[in-house]
Amino acid sequence: MQRRRFLTLAGAGGALLSAPVVAQEAPTINWRMPSSFPRSLDTVWGAAEYLTERVSVLTDGKFTIRPFSAGELVPPLQVLDAVQNGTTECGHTAGFYYLGKEPALVFDTGVPFGLTPRQHTAWLLHGGGGALMDDLYARFNALSIPCGNTGAQMGGWFRKEIKSIDDLKGLRIRTPGLLSMVYEKLGAIPQQVAGSDIYPSLEKGALDAVEFVGPYDDEKLGFSKVASYYYGPGVLELGASLSLTINQDSWAKLPPRYQEALRAACATAADDLLAKYDANNIVALKRLVGQGVKLKAWPPEVMHAMQSATKQVLEDYAAKSPSFAKILASWRAFRADQLLWNSVNDGAAENYLMATRENGL
Amino acid sequence: MQRRRFLTLAGAGGALLSAPVVAQEAPTINWRMPSSFPRSLDTVWGAAEYLTERVSVLTDGKFTIRPFSAGELVPPLQVLDAVQNGTTECGHTAGFYYLGKEPALVFDTGVPFGLTPRQHTAWLLHGGGGALMDDLYARFNALSIPCGNTGAQMGGWFRKEIKSIDDLKGLRIRTPGLLSMVYEKLGAIPQQVAGSDIYPSLEKGALDAVEFVGPYDDEKLGFSKVASYYYGPGVLELGASLSLTINQDSWAKLPPRYQEALRAACATAADDLLAKYDANNIVALKRLVGQGVKLKAWPPEVMHAMQSATKQVLEDYAAKSPSFAKILASWRAFRADQLLWNSVNDGAAENYLMATRENGL
Repeated sequence: MQRRRFLTLAGAGGALLSAPVVAQEAPTINWRMPSSFPRSLDTVWGAAEYLTERVSVLTDGKFTIRPFSAGELVPPLQVLDAVQNGTTECGHTAGFYYLGKEPALVFDTGVPFGLTPRQHTAWLLHGGGGALMDDLYARFNALSIPCGNTGAQMGGWFRKEIKSIDDLKGLRIRTPGLLSMVYEKLGAIPQQVAGSDIYPSLEKGALDAVEFVGPYDDEKLGFSKVASYYYGPGVLELGASLSLTINQDSWAKLPPRYQEALRAACATAADDLLAKYDANNIVALKRLVGQGVKLKAWPPEVMHAMQSATKQVLEDYAAKSPSFAKILASWRAFRADQLLWNSVNDGAAENYLMATRENGL
Repeated sequence: MQRRRFLTLAGAGGALLSAPVVAQEAPTINWRMPSSFPRSLDTVWGAAEYLTERVSVLTDGKFTIRPFSAGELVPPLQVLDAVQNGTTECGHTAGFYYLGKEPALVFDTGVPFGLTPRQHTAWLLHGGGGALMDDLYARFNALSIPCGNTGAQMGGWFRKEIKSIDDLKGLRIRTPGLLSMVYEKLGAIPQQVAGSDIYPSLEKGALDAVEFVGPYDDEKLGFSKVASYYYGPGVLELGASLSLTINQDSWAKLPPRYQEALRAACATAADDLLAKYDANNIVALKRLVGQGVKLKAWPPEVMHAMQSATKQVLEDYAAKSPSFAKILASWRAFRADQLLWNSVNDGAAENYLMATRENGL
């Protein structure tokens, strides 16, 4: 098992040996970082700002990165293009937005019924996933450093109760990327609706449902007033790993310690992002339930159908693309092992704690 | 909710503003870092070395930290003392080893039936835990930065099957700290046995059981040859968070970017440590089971008894120490919220995936 190869550029032996040769002078470097995310997603956006602050502190202010929120500099779903073309040195985005360019980029973010944030990190760092992602991003003259995972996202807000898979048929749901293909296979009619248009679309009935993020972000958009059923658990999105996507030429020009500063700042910001979501989501959820939101768990039949549809979507892509098939094989084998380990140890222990929550410590 | 206060020293506003004033010259600083852990625990020890390498890369080799394995410089369970006294600038250890000095230090590492690695990070960063730990370590002229969590450890190796709590009575088990108090309440007779003496003690029957780490580390010590029952899940240790413990005076002398380098390197090393354990534990477990190890889940009755005993141990401490009681109250409230959130979303989703492992993606 290997760490990401691009990181070995700044790895232990190499960089320690080469450090005296390069970068005795700390160059002043200023980058721009367009984000796919708006400021209103304050946890995600906050982590992007926090990341740039950490880099500045680590380099005594010599390496600065200016973040731009969605659309300020480039359209939100063209951040990878900007990085690829060198319009900007880096970007704050998520691989799965570029499914249309390269379906396998979804593995850098997350796949329905996929890996938890912890398992995703393990796959990248010690499961061979990092090297596969390096190869993939290299086709876009880029590399990707994980800089925050949202954790499982909720299933979303529905105007009507979902009692069986029949209730999904014809359902107009706002949901992105791979999730929309899963819903499509189940007879729903996925819609592309910008964040600011979701509420009015639900209110006037142009939308039946919306999958957004989780309680903390969802609460602010007021969905509960126009769609009273809130579904979990987040089997369709066990995690979404955000990416600091970096132009390879810009990366190569950095002294090793600036490369390491980027990577380390991403690790720090990622810890902070998930911690903030975990601390805040439950507080928001309790408020929402207190306001009368009907918190529901998907019926098992619906989850089974979603799982089968996901499998089909993945196999369709694998049949069309050998590189997708190769990554899927690695990811699948790692996932199977991690599910087994989880069912023996960590996951089984958590289950016991959840089951005895009421009479716990 | 606040981040750890000591970290705000190098925090966004402050450090960015003050950066031009301090540390334009990068000083050469050499620290020593005794560890409580031996080289044979290569994942834990490897992360300690990796951490020092990251710091060196981040500072162009100007800030070096020399790691010493258990006993090389100071006795393994006196690392905190060495840091407190300024014998060394920092140490690589775990708070729960110093239970005898200050019981509340267990909250920096982990408590039976406690927080997962992810929940622990959330408590420290956004649940008020960090500030409480800062206050606690300040009494030892120190501060603690988390630098790796093992994830849930296995219940351990037993020479005989554990069918009920009666089978724990009189059981001579090698287990440390708070776990030994839990076992004691259940009638077992915890033993302090050095790592190298465990195998012969089990072999000749001086020990009936041993709790060590997990499959990857346990396999190397060959316990399966002398104790064929391997118990999980790891309810007694959902995680053990290791600590880079730093002398406050040494910390205060560092320029902000070196402080940030320490923190960032810890985040990077922590990611790597848990990923390595997750990737390797399941591979080792499969080998062990293939060799005939009897993998067993604790009977629910036994877990219930362990949980009640843990509650009693915590309440005994809280009754004796107001500061323990204060930390317990924060930790308990956060834990309750996280269990609720987990049971609604992430944990429930993982459960579905574990339950459908055989017919999954």
